[in-house]
Amino acid sequence: MKKLKCFLALALLATGLHAANSVEQWGVFEIALNGPMNGNPFLDVTFSARFTQGTNSVVANSFYDGDGIYRVRFMPEKTGPWIYKTTSNVRKLNGKRGEFTVTKPSSENHGLVKVANTYHFAYADGTPYKQLGTTCYVWQLQDEALQELTLKTLAASPFNKIRFCVFPKRYTWNTNEPILYPFAGNPAATNWDFTQFNVKYFQHLEQRVADLQKLGIEADIILFHPYDEGHWGFDRMTAAVDDRYLKYVIARLAAYRNVWWSLANEYDFMKEKKESDFVRFGEIVAHDDPYHHLLSIHNGQKFFNHTLPWITHASIQNGAAVEEVGRAEMYRDVYRKPVVFDEVKYEGDIANRWGQLSAEELVFRFWNATIAGTYCGHGETYKSDDQILWWSKGGVLKGQSPARLAFLKRVLDDAPAEGIEPIDKWQNSPIGGQPGKYYLIYFGKQMPTNWTFQIPKPPLGKLQSADGLKFTVEVLDTWNMTVTPQDGVFTLKKKDGYSFADKDGRSITLPGKPYMAIRIKQVKE
Amino acid sequence: MKKLKCFLALALLATGLHAANSVEQWGVFEIALNGPMNGNPFLDVTFSARFTQGTNSVVANSFYDGDGIYRVRFMPEKTGPWIYKTTSNVRKLNGKRGEFTVTKPSSENHGLVKVANTYHFAYADGTPYKQLGTTCYVWQLQDEALQELTLKTLAASPFNKIRFCVFPKRYTWNTNEPILYPFAGNPAATNWDFTQFNVKYFQHLEQRVADLQKLGIEADIILFHPYDEGHWGFDRMTAAVDDRYLKYVIARLAAYRNVWWSLANEYDFMKEKKESDFVRFGEIVAHDDPYHHLLSIHNGQKFFNHTLPWITHASIQNGAAVEEVGRAEMYRDVYRKPVVFDEVKYEGDIANRWGQLSAEELVFRFWNATIAGTYCGHGETYKSDDQILWWSKGGVLKGQSPARLAFLKRVLDDAPAEGIEPIDKWQNSPIGGQPGKYYLIYFGKQMPTNWTFQIPKPPLGKLQSADGLKFTVEVLDTWNMTVTPQDGVFTLKKKDGYSFADKDGRSITLPGKPYMAIRIKQVKE
Repeated sequence: MKKLKCFLALALLATGLHAANSVEQWGVFEIALNGPMNGNPFLDVTFSARFTQGTNSVVANSFYDGDGIYRVRFMPEKTGPWIYKTTSNVRKLNGKRGEFTVTKPSSENHGLVKVANTYHFAYADGTPYKQLGTTCYVWQLQDEALQELTLKTLAASPFNKIRFCVFPKRYTWNTNEPILYPFAGNPAATNWDFTQFNVKYFQHLEQRVADLQKLGIEADIILFHPYDEGHWGFDRMTAAVDDRYLKYVIARLAAYRNVWWSLANEYDFMKEKKESDFVRFGEIVAHDDPYHHLLSIHNGQKFFNHTLPWITHASIQNGAAVEEVGRAEMYRDVYRKPVVFDEVKYEGDIANRWGQLSAEELVFRFWNATIAGTYCGHGETYKSDDQILWWSKGGVLKGQSPARLAFLKRVLDDAPAEGIEPIDKWQNSPIGGQPGKYYLIYFGKQMPTNWTFQIPKPPLGKLQSADGLKFTVEVLDTWNMTVTPQDGVFTLKKKDGYSFADKDGRSITLPGKPYMAIRIKQVKE
Repeated sequence: MKKLKCFLALALLATGLHAANSVEQWGVFEIALNGPMNGNPFLDVTFSARFTQGTNSVVANSFYDGDGIYRVRFMPEKTGPWIYKTTSNVRKLNGKRGEFTVTKPSSENHGLVKVANTYHFAYADGTPYKQLGTTCYVWQLQDEALQELTLKTLAASPFNKIRFCVFPKRYTWNTNEPILYPFAGNPAATNWDFTQFNVKYFQHLEQRVADLQKLGIEADIILFHPYDEGHWGFDRMTAAVDDRYLKYVIARLAAYRNVWWSLANEYDFMKEKKESDFVRFGEIVAHDDPYHHLLSIHNGQKFFNHTLPWITHASIQNGAAVEEVGRAEMYRDVYRKPVVFDEVKYEGDIANRWGQLSAEELVFRFWNATIAGTYCGHGETYKSDDQILWWSKGGVLKGQSPARLAFLKRVLDDAPAEGIEPIDKWQNSPIGGQPGKYYLIYFGKQMPTNWTFQIPKPPLGKLQSADGLKFTVEVLDTWNMTVTPQDGVFTLKKKDGYSFADKDGRSITLPGKPYMAIRIKQVKE
């Protein structure tokens, strides 16, 4: 709870002090200064600070937070002493210097999530991060009680990422107005002063990001989306307003370690924008965010070019790609980046084809994505008299998939830190793992009653032969959430040029039910 | 046969005349001049010509063809009068001017193949080109009789593209030396003068390209490959030699309308090259080829970045992608270019897993690729006492797939010119066609005995309703190569928000065999 204390300390700074003198690694260090209130502080004042430790140097831009207060936030990635110096076109904000100490992170703080092993993720301290995301597009813009309920639900869920939008959403089941608006102006007339941010709107947003951080949940922040269609007009602001908005959000939020950037949801459905606009947005975020948080963009029908260098991982909507392991792994080869299937249709019962998956089907899709060495996203669209569908507003989870995804999460937490890789993808797509060490074989909708032990030829390393290597076997019922260890060890014996069986030809009895998996681990001798 | 006459005429030019005074559109116009024989003509002489018609202007580089003869070749893309002027660092090659007339193309000449409708191909005159390729890596470097046999086999085959390598190949079943070598030097000692091309080698190559053109077959020329591993060393030449070689081949061959460029086969298996080398090669080809022939690069395990702007289509090796329609269509979204699965494993009976597909399986894969709106490649690896496997050396085809691919070709020739597109890919992957006009439904390995007429909601255009639209239905047995028209017409009636059935609920009897398809065509009234 060191973080909370830090927040209290920072609140005091609004009186004109510079900053605290210590912060934990990957925490938020803040400089808050009083500055001009005349003119338009959002447009007139430039203010930034350079943070330096030896040869490391980071520049962070400020944002105006109302009431004459200007803030610069910094997320230190190294412990030890740091100094800073401010630069501004306003005399009283310019040339301020200070020093502070960055302490070791608290126990729940592992830093920001980064790409690891090309296709996977890990926190900055090396702890693996196995993405298990969900989506509640505008949960933070519903009434306060519903927001708190959503947080409570998330706290009890297996999800470690949530996708949500900065801007309000207008769409079926979500025609209510938001609790706040992002710009000054007259909401009734949808008449905005795009030169004045509503600081309360963004203070609230950042509070929710901090709340998620306390729960250990990454905030995948969707910067633009099409579900406005001119109602408020936040989907069709000018390029100058778009860019200023991005810089404002980055200055405010980039120091929160649990932030991911999603340039847009269904970017290609934003009819007032061109693809080149999103390239510009990506370049702005990549340039302005000093910590290079994970950055991607989500598609409707038209895929974005995820090979662009500033895109850290492919955030993909595809309603069919995770129906099968062999499909799910295909984008890995193309992008050579982590593939996150952020939208794969939803568990629910609405009339739209994208929102009527059974729980079994959604869990099946998560397992396919997992075996393929990719990551999947949850969503829920059960019809509701109160019009509160999790997918849009949060609230409570009504489906049966989250419990099974919690089981999957336990499997992932037990899996190799390096991540699960396709093992023999041109021949046997339903096998993932780490060659020689760990295998997950997933039977999906097949209902075998027996499985003869066999694995693809493992790498030899320094060994002369893979014959004699020993493995344990467990049977996983991914729907009923059971793990059944099998007796004894299985000892490899070459079967042919490509595969190894058990030396005694042993096989395993299976229950003839769908959604079974087999977990195989090398016995360390 | 106008082309042949032109060749004869050009042969006469070697005596020192400038050029013929007429050539057909997309034919080869050539300027042949006598120049210096001293020094090293490959290095010392620069020589090019600018061809102009009104505001159109094309520069083509020359190549040295031995015996003091320098040639500039040009493929005119417009009919009518053209003029040219040469530029050289040698006085007798410099400043030559001429004029000639480009006549209408002969009946079998449709121009070069280009990308059409984003995912498909068409000849320059608009004629659709439905790619049906095969591979014989070094057929043109075998003995003369075998080369002629290969041409005879190709002439009787359904294939309209063949992939083959410029450089000789050394690999299992292909350890013989080639009939010629690309550089001057001592073959026995594999000691080459990389500054001197062996013009006979390249004259022979171009003769084979011309032979293929006469058969209506595109020559997908593989510029580099790894199957050398230092034996001759053509896989590890210096960057300067690589680049000079590329420019030489382009100067020689770019005027042949049936040329496609493949920068490499299994580029990632070329251990002496970096990925950036292939980017440089691609940029050279894109720059030097005035006609922008189709240009791609083929992978082993690691996919190339086919989003690069100079890549016209994705040439892909994937041993599993065409096992299923839903997989096959996935790369279309990523690349937004035609996808050609040039290697999908081979029909054959060798011990390697990539060379032991049944004919049924290979034909199945072609159909999956077709329904997915992509294109597929054939290959054959039947063991043979004479070590002549089609895949490497050509000869005769032993398999059962080519006849079925000829049947597929007839289906493609009958299909809409715009190409086959996935119709409802997130819901019903095995349906391809053109919405409202034409559908192919493929059952693959399923063996239904009945199919109830149903298609996804067609686009309305100017219609109020799709109810009442009429279609004919044929049952295709893709293995036994039969087309069975069904009685009467099927009349649409809305079934639900996404699909239409026949107004009388009619269904179609199927034989309960695998590899069946249904073809549905709108009845024009």
